[in-house]
Amino acid sequence: MRFRPATLLPAAFAFACTVCATAPAALAQTAPAQSAPAASKPRTMQEILDASKPSDWRALDPARTLYLDLDAGRVVIELAPAFAPAHVANVRALARGGYWNGLSINRVQDNFVTQWGDPSEDEKARRPLPKGAKAKLPAEFTRSERNIPFTPLPDADGWARQVGFSDGFPVGVDTRDDTAWIAHCYGAVGAGRGNDADSSDGSELYVVIGQSPRQLDRNMSMVGRVVQGMELLSALPRGTGPLGFYERPEQRVAIRSARMASDLKPAERLNLQVLRTDTPLFTELVEARRNRRDDFYKRPAGHIDLCNVPLPVREAPAAAAKPKR
Amino acid sequence: MRFRPATLLPAAFAFACTVCATAPAALAQTAPAQSAPAASKPRTMQEILDASKPSDWRALDPARTLYLDLDAGRVVIELAPAFAPAHVANVRALARGGYWNGLSINRVQDNFVTQWGDPSEDEKARRPLPKGAKAKLPAEFTRSERNIPFTPLPDADGWARQVGFSDGFPVGVDTRDDTAWIAHCYGAVGAGRGNDADSSDGSELYVVIGQSPRQLDRNMSMVGRVVQGMELLSALPRGTGPLGFYERPEQRVAIRSARMASDLKPAERLNLQVLRTDTPLFTELVEARRNRRDDFYKRPAGHIDLCNVPLPVREAPAAAAKPKR
Repeated sequence: MRFRPATLLPAAFAFACTVCATAPAALAQTAPAQSAPAASKPRTMQEILDASKPSDWRALDPARTLYLDLDAGRVVIELAPAFAPAHVANVRALARGGYWNGLSINRVQDNFVTQWGDPSEDEKARRPLPKGAKAKLPAEFTRSERNIPFTPLPDADGWARQVGFSDGFPVGVDTRDDTAWIAHCYGAVGAGRGNDADSSDGSELYVVIGQSPRQLDRNMSMVGRVVQGMELLSALPRGTGPLGFYERPEQRVAIRSARMASDLKPAERLNLQVLRTDTPLFTELVEARRNRRDDFYKRPAGHIDLCNVPLPVREAPAAAAKPKR
Repeated sequence: MRFRPATLLPAAFAFACTVCATAPAALAQTAPAQSAPAASKPRTMQEILDASKPSDWRALDPARTLYLDLDAGRVVIELAPAFAPAHVANVRALARGGYWNGLSINRVQDNFVTQWGDPSEDEKARRPLPKGAKAKLPAEFTRSERNIPFTPLPDADGWARQVGFSDGFPVGVDTRDDTAWIAHCYGAVGAGRGNDADSSDGSELYVVIGQSPRQLDRNMSMVGRVVQGMELLSALPRGTGPLGFYERPEQRVAIRSARMASDLKPAERLNLQVLRTDTPLFTELVEARRNRRDDFYKRPAGHIDLCNVPLPVREAPAAAAKPKR
């Protein structure tokens, strides 16, 4: 059975499915059946999601949701103040001050990152930070691993002592030195910096668009992750200059605005929900992905990497948006 | 020091570098110095490549090089007959018979794959296979691990007993059941199939454009990998239909031609070289990437995943093309 994203929005983490023969007719033949699966067969991801309850999902908090609006559409970023409080505070101040409005995406390096901010070469020509945004921040590469929600993955990871999910974010954890950090998975958003660890101010942001560059873990202040609209950042033309920078100003991709959802009227906000990562349902989903049991897979992997776990996103069901009684 | 791809072609595996502050002026200041590095400091990847000898590189073999020509440019695919001899033989026959000429890229699923072939829904409308191409092939998910060149990586991998490189291809190996297979890293090219293991004929090909979907390892017949032009496949608009298929025929990306380099006149071929993976220099490069020692990285990872190892590609130096005496 092949996964069809019928009821779900395109997610930052693609619902990676089988590589099937292309004929749409063939696809149609394999649309998910409505009948219940055989009792002995574990549920597929789609079946698990179809069986989810409202409590398996959580609404995005407008106070930590950033909308990056491009001509092509909206990118939704969930911020992670639990991991980089100073950077997230600056991102909020930058958004409120309209810092990114009219700036641009300046760098798209294939299999690495898309990056946006002020492209000015001349320091003096760079846009000043708005009121409330600080020019100097501490490096926030890791935080204490104590007192964070943590759902460990069953599998080991060469990049970290332990990996799993913390309130929807893929994270590494090391109890030996009491650290936790957001991993550089596809869709992770970090603050660009110079060579000095504390040289990022959150005005330059990048998002991972390829194979997870986990070597950057614990080297960058991570501000969040893209939960929707990832394709607006990943499918951009690659820059041909060094490091994937666009060589000519007209190649840059304009940013219409970057605003906090909480700064918009409720009616102007998207009503998105993400799957909770601290539920039995999520644990079942991880297992369904560790061992694919559908008709396509001939050999289940018995393993999953942190950055291969899908993190489903959906529009809030109408019933949830308008509770009866 | 930041890596600048000054002398190298854009490679299928991006030379993932640091996430720097964007100002090009700042970049220019950090261009690789020509002076020798301090004796105590390990060489960076760029320094290693700069010091490479002609024998550290190998020319692509025209008999196993496929050119996929799109309006936007050429994608170069190195085929792997050592891993899927029947499929590669079919790919050669399909290319020679002009099978893909005028067909299209029909599917681009974000963070997963780009796929091309005949988009016809109606089986009867599908283009017949040319002479020499077989309609039925055996599944070639793995091969014997004996007698293949193999440079193991120092790090463990949750997806395979052992991982490393075989003649330039990232592979998994398991001596317990005597198998080896090409891993689904960024740029890997496989043969799409239906639910039956032996239902691929090589006419539908896909390439990995996101986080490595290693769960497909040992489930697909892998025909090769993209060595140049990856951005022509990874930056395409994502399909909005199920599984990332383009919903309207006009969204499909036309294939001008797909030809074997060996079927072109020598003057029409690209003169590309790829870094050999069975040399001390490559081992040094892997270590340089396992532990970044440049000024940007504050904490070397001490680890690298199979799909994070860059596989450099370059145009053959003029001196090599025209040996003196």
